[in-house]
Amino acid sequence: MSNDIGIKAVEEAPEELYKVELKADERIDELQRKGYQIIQNPKQFCFGMDAVLLAGFADIRKEASVLDMGTGTGIIPLLLEAREKGSKFIGIDIQEDSIDMAKRSVQLNHLEEKIHIIKADIKEATQLFPLSSFDVVVTNPPYMSAHAGLKNPDSAKAIARHEVHASLDEWIEVASRLVKVGGKFFMVHRPHRLTDIMSALDKHELTVKRIKMVHPYVDKEANMVLIEAVRKGKSQVIVEKPLIVYKALNEYHDEIHDIYGY
Amino acid sequence: MSNDIGIKAVEEAPEELYKVELKADERIDELQRKGYQIIQNPKQFCFGMDAVLLAGFADIRKEASVLDMGTGTGIIPLLLEAREKGSKFIGIDIQEDSIDMAKRSVQLNHLEEKIHIIKADIKEATQLFPLSSFDVVVTNPPYMSAHAGLKNPDSAKAIARHEVHASLDEWIEVASRLVKVGGKFFMVHRPHRLTDIMSALDKHELTVKRIKMVHPYVDKEANMVLIEAVRKGKSQVIVEKPLIVYKALNEYHDEIHDIYGY
Repeated sequence: MSNDIGIKAVEEAPEELYKVELKADERIDELQRKGYQIIQNPKQFCFGMDAVLLAGFADIRKEASVLDMGTGTGIIPLLLEAREKGSKFIGIDIQEDSIDMAKRSVQLNHLEEKIHIIKADIKEATQLFPLSSFDVVVTNPPYMSAHAGLKNPDSAKAIARHEVHASLDEWIEVASRLVKVGGKFFMVHRPHRLTDIMSALDKHELTVKRIKMVHPYVDKEANMVLIEAVRKGKSQVIVEKPLIVYKALNEYHDEIHDIYGY
Repeated sequence: MSNDIGIKAVEEAPEELYKVELKADERIDELQRKGYQIIQNPKQFCFGMDAVLLAGFADIRKEASVLDMGTGTGIIPLLLEAREKGSKFIGIDIQEDSIDMAKRSVQLNHLEEKIHIIKADIKEATQLFPLSSFDVVVTNPPYMSAHAGLKNPDSAKAIARHEVHASLDEWIEVASRLVKVGGKFFMVHRPHRLTDIMSALDKHELTVKRIKMVHPYVDKEANMVLIEAVRKGKSQVIVEKPLIVYKALNEYHDEIHDIYGY
């Protein structure tokens, strides 16, 4: 049986039906929350701290509908669901392999009713979903502009890291068209793109409300930036206390332990 | 005798000619650098940490020509000169009383050959100076939009704090027209205006290169932002390590002591 967006849902099936198969080079990792697990292929792309920090930063009401643009292996919907941030999730991505792993991870965690994974190009998303329909859009987009040092534009890593299929501006435009007026947009990105980010958000009526800089150490440059915007909100930016990852070599700050949940 | 920009210069005058008179409510404060002093009127406006941090943040070659837009009592040219950042300074401001104090402070410190204070509206500045003529423009502009909670738009405090005479966008446009292509622009502002700041800089071809957030404590929101831009530079933002002002109540962090110089 299929539900309305084409994801196989198995109702009241015995436990063993949820057992999913792993393909070559894939492995299962623990998410340290609610016992959730994720299937990843370390030869392609594994989620990083950026996804975890974004899920921690995103301030989402429990009942919200959430679109994750460029969901990859589905890490962000899994983490948000585990934290009871949002109730219905759609994750879209263009990479076949990632989508395939994400779907099996959803099955593995028995979350078919809550998380729907769809293979789609970001640019098609405004045809797939009603405009202004999501309470929240989250995204951990490619950080690098299309051809900055790019050797193999078809590889999973290249698609995850470079703007091969959609520019940052296009990405943000789609987010703005899909989120409700007054709805929230959360993104993690790299500080070196801050001008592009702020300009694109401003252009597409996503008003920045909250910025958090992430520094590996207190005396180092920021290497990630977390941003919250509201569609057509009132412009008033808060730059929150910085998030400092390490207090010493290989020793996380307490805040990172809190976000990771262990 | 007057020099070419209308500032009285006294050459080889005996020491006592430099003695300046104080007007009602004015006082002389020490700048803790090179023995420099500044005349201020605490009933009007005294310089704050923002000016000191901007002078510390600004990375200016020793031989550079520097325009300070909205110089007030001339604090920024005085601090830059004391740090040997720049060789020739022009400070402009629209407030008669501030300009008058700034001129006397320049005399008090025997800096008439290096610092020139001119009463002018920011909007007139592109008529006063050749376009693209300064190596560096610095500014500590009004932080508040024109009418946000404004009661007395003619007061010195109002003019220093609110965009009564020029909007942030106009302010930045003038800076961009007066600085050389490849020249630097340094500004201190409030983080809540970050979208307006980034958009105006982008619009007027001042490319953001460096951002430093200033937090009163490590666990508090930023209350100042320091920005370096280059006219028509390549877009690549560095968000520097945060500047944390206090490590404990009334106890400055070492970096603040370094910037203040004591």
